[in-house]
Amino acid sequence: MTLFDTLDILGTIAFAISGALSAMNRRLDLFGIFIIAFVTAIGGGTLRDVLIGATPVSWMQNTINLYLIGGVTGVSIIFRNKLDYLKKSLFLFDTIGLGIFTIIGVEAGIQTDLDPIICIALGTMTGCFGGVIRDILCNEIPVIFRKEVYATASIAGGICFMILHALKAPINITYIATTLLIIVIRLLVVKYQVSLPMFTVRNQKT
Amino acid sequence: MTLFDTLDILGTIAFAISGALSAMNRRLDLFGIFIIAFVTAIGGGTLRDVLIGATPVSWMQNTINLYLIGGVTGVSIIFRNKLDYLKKSLFLFDTIGLGIFTIIGVEAGIQTDLDPIICIALGTMTGCFGGVIRDILCNEIPVIFRKEVYATASIAGGICFMILHALKAPINITYIATTLLIIVIRLLVVKYQVSLPMFTVRNQKT
Amino acid sequence: MTLFDTLDILGTIAFAISGALSAMNRRLDLFGIFIIAFVTAIGGGTLRDVLIGATPVSWMQNTINLYLIGGVTGVSIIFRNKLDYLKKSLFLFDTIGLGIFTIIGVEAGIQTDLDPIICIALGTMTGCFGGVIRDILCNEIPVIFRKEVYATASIAGGICFMILHALKAPINITYIATTLLIIVIRLLVVKYQVSLPMFTVRNQKT
Repeated sequence: MTLFDTLDILGTIAFAISGALSAMNRRLDLFGIFIIAFVTAIGGGTLRDVLIGATPVSWMQNTINLYLIGGVTGVSIIFRNKLDYLKKSLFLFDTIGLGIFTIIGVEAGIQTDLDPIICIALGTMTGCFGGVIRDILCNEIPVIFRKEVYATASIAGGICFMILHALKAPINITYIATTLLIIVIRLLVVKYQVSLPMFTVRNQKT
Repeated sequence: MTLFDTLDILGTIAFAISGALSAMNRRLDLFGIFIIAFVTAIGGGTLRDVLIGATPVSWMQNTINLYLIGGVTGVSIIFRNKLDYLKKSLFLFDTIGLGIFTIIGVEAGIQTDLDPIICIALGTMTGCFGGVIRDILCNEIPVIFRKEVYATASIAGGICFMILHALKAPINITYIATTLLIIVIRLLVVKYQVSLPMFTVRNQKT
Repeated sequence: MTLFDTLDILGTIAFAISGALSAMNRRLDLFGIFIIAFVTAIGGGTLRDVLIGATPVSWMQNTINLYLIGGVTGVSIIFRNKLDYLKKSLFLFDTIGLGIFTIIGVEAGIQTDLDPIICIALGTMTGCFGGVIRDILCNEIPVIFRKEVYATASIAGGICFMILHALKAPINITYIATTLLIIVIRLLVVKYQVSLPMFTVRNQKT
């Protein structure tokens, strides 16, 4: 198993835990918790595969994710009252997951010979869309549209990847630089509480 | 027309009625009622087709569903105040629909040479996802994540199907046993008011 | 650039503005505004491409939409308090967009050799579904299911297109007649405040 696979698994685990916690907060039942954990972890990659036509989608061809997410759901339920103590590690895993999933998405776009800007969009989609589906299923306005600079970190990482790719940098360096950039941006953003500007319409009667 | 086709049509009708009733409860207009009836009946199969890459999706290649659902919508609207008397038959049709759609989904997975666990997932998706889309469009947390053992019956049926398939049982027996198992589980669950456990996080401030 | 391309761009712009305004009303951040503008403009075409299997979907093969929508988002934000004065032109653009997107959808169905009724459904989907996704992401029951005769105009246009197509009318006449019919229906409907009938269930306890 390569470093890449290991990080992919860490990302899947972090996203699955984040989904399971959301579902428990919404008082869903056991099946609901598993499904929300599942779509949070695989939603982004599934949307990417469907849009570029890479079907059957990847989780159907590699069943390890299904078992992994099932295990994570069980563990999350058992330790649900202890997860507070893990919040910092969770945040880190989640950020690593964002980095890795962004890279996987950009790579899929390059392999399908798409325009660089579309590759970046695919990276962002792969990294962020699982959380969007989680929020829609839990009947909330997706959090990434409201207060996170989550997507921005992913977009910056995608741009960095495409530049290094165009410069024909060695693939390992491209991977590491992209992931590090995403992690650093997200940590800085949270530390300094940066957020994207919001614009509201004055005197609007909807 | 085979027994299988007949049951398929019964399932489509039951799901379409369930969708039309939901939409009328939400005060949607005529077009909204038709669309919700339509997605409830074909949503699961459409998601399955998209994820495995069987496009154009099946309702585009067999227009009978479109006409059938149109007719069901009309009849549901006319008899909307009498449907209470039909609730028991509706529940039965809906459960038969769940059984048949689960089988169709598992079969599609087998035909695409997917792993047995993915075939079961496809069966559950085909049986349950139409209701999930119905609830999302009506702006509710999907009911199957909250209080139904609906999905569990479908999963149990899918497992039964794959075991009989592995044992090379005759296809008719496989179909009948799977459908019966799903119906029996669902009836027992409703009779004895079984529900899946829920887990909530203590002292959680979201 | 043909008249058709010009109108396509007008439609994309109108839909993107409508999405950006919705997002600002929901207090989303910059990224959220762009994404909502984007899915409103390309959602219908993307669903159509995925369901008929035309992947990678069209906005991945033609990046002009991405830049166009980015520009529109910026302009919408800058002039957000002035857009009230543009409401009438916006409504007209939006209606033109509905006409053009309906035609593009019907054409895609004809090119894929689908049944005429499915072609009409594809036209309606291409014209209307972006708005549905916008509403789901903003956590509302889609407006077209509640009070607009939006979809009805699109369906009427689709029927008109298929009849002229069957009669082998020249393609330009087919385009113009379809678009005009959709525009006229929508203007009449808004002027005379027609709405589709709603049906509610008496004494329903959900």
